[in-house]
Amino acid sequence: MGVYPKNFEALVESLKKFPGVGEKSAERMALSILDMSLEDIELMREALLNCKKDLHPCSVCGYLTDQEVCPICSDESRDKNLICVVEDYKSAFAFEKVGNFKGVYHILNGLISPMLNKGAEDINLSSLGRRIENLKHPELILALGSSLEAETTILYIKEIFKSKDVTISRLSHGIPMGAEIEYLDMMTLDKALFDRKVISE
Amino acid sequence: MGVYPKNFEALVESLKKFPGVGEKSAERMALSILDMSLEDIELMREALLNCKKDLHPCSVCGYLTDQEVCPICSDESRDKNLICVVEDYKSAFAFEKVGNFKGVYHILNGLISPMLNKGAEDINLSSLGRRIENLKHPELILALGSSLEAETTILYIKEIFKSKDVTISRLSHGIPMGAEIEYLDMMTLDKALFDRKVISE
Repeated sequence: MGVYPKNFEALVESLKKFPGVGEKSAERMALSILDMSLEDIELMREALLNCKKDLHPCSVCGYLTDQEVCPICSDESRDKNLICVVEDYKSAFAFEKVGNFKGVYHILNGLISPMLNKGAEDINLSSLGRRIENLKHPELILALGSSLEAETTILYIKEIFKSKDVTISRLSHGIPMGAEIEYLDMMTLDKALFDRKVISE
Repeated sequence: MGVYPKNFEALVESLKKFPGVGEKSAERMALSILDMSLEDIELMREALLNCKKDLHPCSVCGYLTDQEVCPICSDESRDKNLICVVEDYKSAFAFEKVGNFKGVYHILNGLISPMLNKGAEDINLSSLGRRIENLKHPELILALGSSLEAETTILYIKEIFKSKDVTISRLSHGIPMGAEIEYLDMMTLDKALFDRKVISE
């Protein structure tokens, strides 16, 4: 026999399929199932199935939704001319949690990466082109981080929309709120100095 | 609307019930469900239910099992006179993974903790007393770690089995295999010196 009871082994193996969950964490999580109420477990089982069955990218922006067009794209109060271009769902969730952004999103579902042989056709970019055709001088906010892949993608987007009637912006770089200057990495500090803002003249 | 689609929100909330899983990890895990095959998800759903329904402590030793008596206790080849007393399932799993222990277990399912108001009657101890009644000079290996609670429990077990025909041992303390002496904590080093083993005389 193995170390674990058969059913327990199956659960540990299943939980190990989650990202960042190794043998030890899976064991701990599986043990916690024994102490959970049957009701909570049924809720989890339902949620697992419902997520897999009902969720897919919004046909307009690529946001995760159970509808054809997501609630953000269908929200009359949001500015359709202000499009925040993000790498993945997680980035869009992060902005929505802050809650101050009143525009819409475009989820690329990846970045251009010559190293991984991922080109513009492998991410959700062509639909962005079609999308802005119908808009009147939209602004694209590129919120893509500062990795090499992000820089490549930003360059590419700038290039393909060069001749279009569109403003392209990107997030500001600088010192994070609450950070101590002495502990900042040199690149950030250098960037913050270079991009300094005049507050009185 | 919330940040997440409704079904996704439900899954994130469910996953946060696992120990050590916060908002960020739950979000990441829930997103991974979207990329999993329906088959893998069904396996996970089944395993969740089966674990909750079928698993319970062995009536003899308290090991996790789907039978009345666990495979370890029913294994003819294992020495019933050699009982390794552990705090929880996880400790027993750890010994089973090593695979060298040919005795049986007794899972206390907790430790005596005066601070948490947990006494001997709150852990699986009385059954241990009944268990050794039928044995011929058994050995109890107390594998309980070295926390204050472990020491208290060890003292208590020594006390109640004082007049019985039973050998009580505990795991050896010392330097872990592969450890560098210079990085060891002082208590371990002191203990390793005190408990040194003569290798030639």
